Amino acid sequence: MGKDNKSKMVEAITSMDEDFAKWYTDVVLKAELIDYSSVRGCMILRPYGFAIWENIQKILDGMFKATGHENVAMPMFIPESLLQKEKDHVEGFAPEVAWVTHGGSEQLTERLCVRPTSETLFCDHFSNIVQSYRDLPKLYNQWVSVVRWEKTTRPFLRSLEFYWQEGHTVHATAEEAEEETVRMLNVYADFYRDALAIPVIKGRKTDKEKFAGANATYTIESMMKDGKALQSGTSHNFGDGFAKAFDIQFTDKDNTQKYVHETSWGMSTRTIGAIIMVHGDDNGLMLPPAVAPIQTVIVPIAMHKEGVLDKANELKARLASKFRVKVDDSDKMPGWKFAEYEMKGVPVRLELGPRDIENNHCVLVRRDTNEKITVSLDNIEEELENLLKAVHDNMYARALERLESRIYEAHDYDEFKKTVEEKPGFIKAMWCGELDCELKIKEDTTATSRCMPFDAEAIDDKCVCCGKPAKKLVVWGKAY
Amino acid sequence: MGKDNKSKMVEAITSMDEDFAKWYTDVVLKAELIDYSSVRGCMILRPYGFAIWENIQKILDGMFKATGHENVAMPMFIPESLLQKEKDHVEGFAPEVAWVTHGGSEQLTERLCVRPTSETLFCDHFSNIVQSYRDLPKLYNQWVSVVRWEKTTRPFLRSLEFYWQEGHTVHATAEEAEEETVRMLNVYADFYRDALAIPVIKGRKTDKEKFAGANATYTIESMMKDGKALQSGTSHNFGDGFAKAFDIQFTDKDNTQKYVHETSWGMSTRTIGAIIMVHGDDNGLMLPPAVAPIQTVIVPIAMHKEGVLDKANELKARLASKFRVKVDDSDKMPGWKFAEYEMKGVPVRLELGPRDIENNHCVLVRRDTNEKITVSLDNIEEELENLLKAVHDNMYARALERLESRIYEAHDYDEFKKTVEEKPGFIKAMWCGELDCELKIKEDTTATSRCMPFDAEAIDDKCVCCGKPAKKLVVWGKAY
Repeated sequence: MGKDNKSKMVEAITSMDEDFAKWYTDVVLKAELIDYSSVRGCMILRPYGFAIWENIQKILDGMFKATGHENVAMPMFIPESLLQKEKDHVEGFAPEVAWVTHGGSEQLTERLCVRPTSETLFCDHFSNIVQSYRDLPKLYNQWVSVVRWEKTTRPFLRSLEFYWQEGHTVHATAEEAEEETVRMLNVYADFYRDALAIPVIKGRKTDKEKFAGANATYTIESMMKDGKALQSGTSHNFGDGFAKAFDIQFTDKDNTQKYVHETSWGMSTRTIGAIIMVHGDDNGLMLPPAVAPIQTVIVPIAMHKEGVLDKANELKARLASKFRVKVDDSDKMPGWKFAEYEMKGVPVRLELGPRDIENNHCVLVRRDTNEKITVSLDNIEEELENLLKAVHDNMYARALERLESRIYEAHDYDEFKKTVEEKPGFIKAMWCGELDCELKIKEDTTATSRCMPFDAEAIDDKCVCCGKPAKKLVVWGKAY
Repeated sequence: MGKDNKSKMVEAITSMDEDFAKWYTDVVLKAELIDYSSVRGCMILRPYGFAIWENIQKILDGMFKATGHENVAMPMFIPESLLQKEKDHVEGFAPEVAWVTHGGSEQLTERLCVRPTSETLFCDHFSNIVQSYRDLPKLYNQWVSVVRWEKTTRPFLRSLEFYWQEGHTVHATAEEAEEETVRMLNVYADFYRDALAIPVIKGRKTDKEKFAGANATYTIESMMKDGKALQSGTSHNFGDGFAKAFDIQFTDKDNTQKYVHETSWGMSTRTIGAIIMVHGDDNGLMLPPAVAPIQTVIVPIAMHKEGVLDKANELKARLASKFRVKVDDSDKMPGWKFAEYEMKGVPVRLELGPRDIENNHCVLVRRDTNEKITVSLDNIEEELENLLKAVHDNMYARALERLESRIYEAHDYDEFKKTVEEKPGFIKAMWCGELDCELKIKEDTTATSRCMPFDAEAIDDKCVCCGKPAKKLVVWGKAY
């Protein structure tokens, strides 16, 4: 009974200023996004957490289809010999894969790894189905889970198994592959801005940070409330490296044999971690309206009074065709419900009591500002639509302001180190392009190169670390 | 070049009368539903095959949500000790699971199996989150792939990895669990009838054929064109067996501790096998309109003539809000296109040439009957909607007529054996309820008990096999 009553309570969440990591775990568990499982490092996505992922999937999948992509499904296993075909790729992934060695009671003649990513499977398939320029491009995607044997794990941010989509495309020319790589990075950035209200920095990864086997990796990086970076989506141009390893050739219009050019791009359930850490506060989650499982919760006031619950249900029925709406008709006190839906990050609360009904209005309360407005029930659909848009816009504006105000410049190494130590956020600094400097910075400060932003202007002519001539502006930061 | 030209051709399909198994494989490959992978027994779902599965998912998921179910996601791994908690369950599944024994280069202290089904994971979770009657029922579902280490495999029908949904629910009473078990079986039967145009026989499995660990398994059985049965969806009532094994108790209203009652139910990509083998013919696939990736293909005639392609695209834009439509503007001859979309099972072909445009009409051709009708473009939306409905209804009526005409009765064992040998289809016969007779029938004839149909009337008073008093009417048949 103790546990029962407790689970019904709106429990206090650790303050984010006091302990950001503890705050994060509290929110993840108390908003009922996940439960821990009996498998080390694997999480259970509970209905409320999975509903966020479903909304993310629906919007992103629509964007993929609008850009000509088709969904497929590859096996979850990769034979060891197939994983080994591309040298850099196997070196990057083999240390962190799970190996299936037995089927039933028999030992397998060849081990199978559980996919950590599926380039090798797609390449193998492409080599079967691509013969002519008429077969190109192939623009494929799949929604699956993948497994990477991580030592330490955190819900959404780093787990043994996680959910994602992986796009895999092959093209006739290097130009088309590059266009695709950039196109999909822009899809990710647009999705973050328009659906999640999260601003990002777009750029290219250094060679050290790029994907195993890629010529170039592009990334969107977002900033959490503690100033740390979260790599939020990546898009890779493989050139013809995999095509050569897997012999994916086609007969071109000029009747010669050519290798295809390939890309891949992925976004995962990490995104839910970004939503939590960019928008959440000491009252819990704050969900962007586009992906919130409940966009508006109707809380009846003086629910026992005649007509209140009927009116609340009537209002729900009216709103349900345009919005994701729930009526909470449980026997908890309204104040408890307010706190519970704040914790669950519902963007707008709708309060409706006897006096409201008498006056043909209701009260709308924003999660982002706590602001209350009284609106007529006559045009509640329009009011709600405008308010949800305003919530989104405000969430984005605040996140953008925070991001921009926490990007610092460093012109020498002392300034760099001091900034990392004293100011949570990102640092812009020039870089000579040498791995040694990148490694030294990481060792000295724990900050890593997040990306080389597109179209960045030089702020200096020498490397912030070694003082030699600088090649690139890099955004640095501590990262999840 | 040879392979290239060949892949563009509409290749002949083996006749189904000549070799049904070969016909099936030809259709699966030539309609581009799947490709074989480098992993034994695992298939690749290609875009056209996966699009059918997406449509199935969308409709079924809507039916699950309409009946109050929520989606979740469990880990893909099950620790060996967890799998072993329910005795019958582990005996049923352990011989056919894949074992992960290593993570990276380290051997695991406990083996993990790749889920063959997820009862044990759900039970483990339910034992964490269910404390009070207020927490019940939990009505969960997940869309995932599972792995069973089969010796021989066939695309969609039996593969090492397959895609499915698995519903898992817990209830306060045995009555509610039984209601749920039957409700979801009816959802499956309705889905087969309304979305797939496939009639089924609903009934209960014998103890021999029921799910490992279940008190009762209900099933829908459909009949393929070769007369064989396909188990098409099952719903299991576990009673409180799993609850006791996993200690899932709750405090009831009367303040006593009680065990929950549990159900699970699943439908898989086998369903695509059913669609192929119930509706397909020697020209290829025949897809039910509700799940067809392309419901109508527009084939422009004399495409080079001015205005034809524009008009075709205009028509597509007009129809696209209500139907899944494609214009084939490739440079193949119309006759080739006709054959190609017949093979792909597109329910209605729309032909549009210069003379049609002049007369403001077009020609609609049904895949199921090959019937052509000329209709005005003015009310093409309505014509097409009616025609797709007529195609569905006719496909269902034909399948029902075939099913009903191939259910035979047997009143003694000689008649039974002769019927199995000579008449492809199902056999109704009485059964004493003893395992021995069930095993003998299987050994003598290869026919298995498919189900004990609900509300079946006795056709005899003695067992068809042993002659002892009969308890149940059973539908028998050879099965996939």
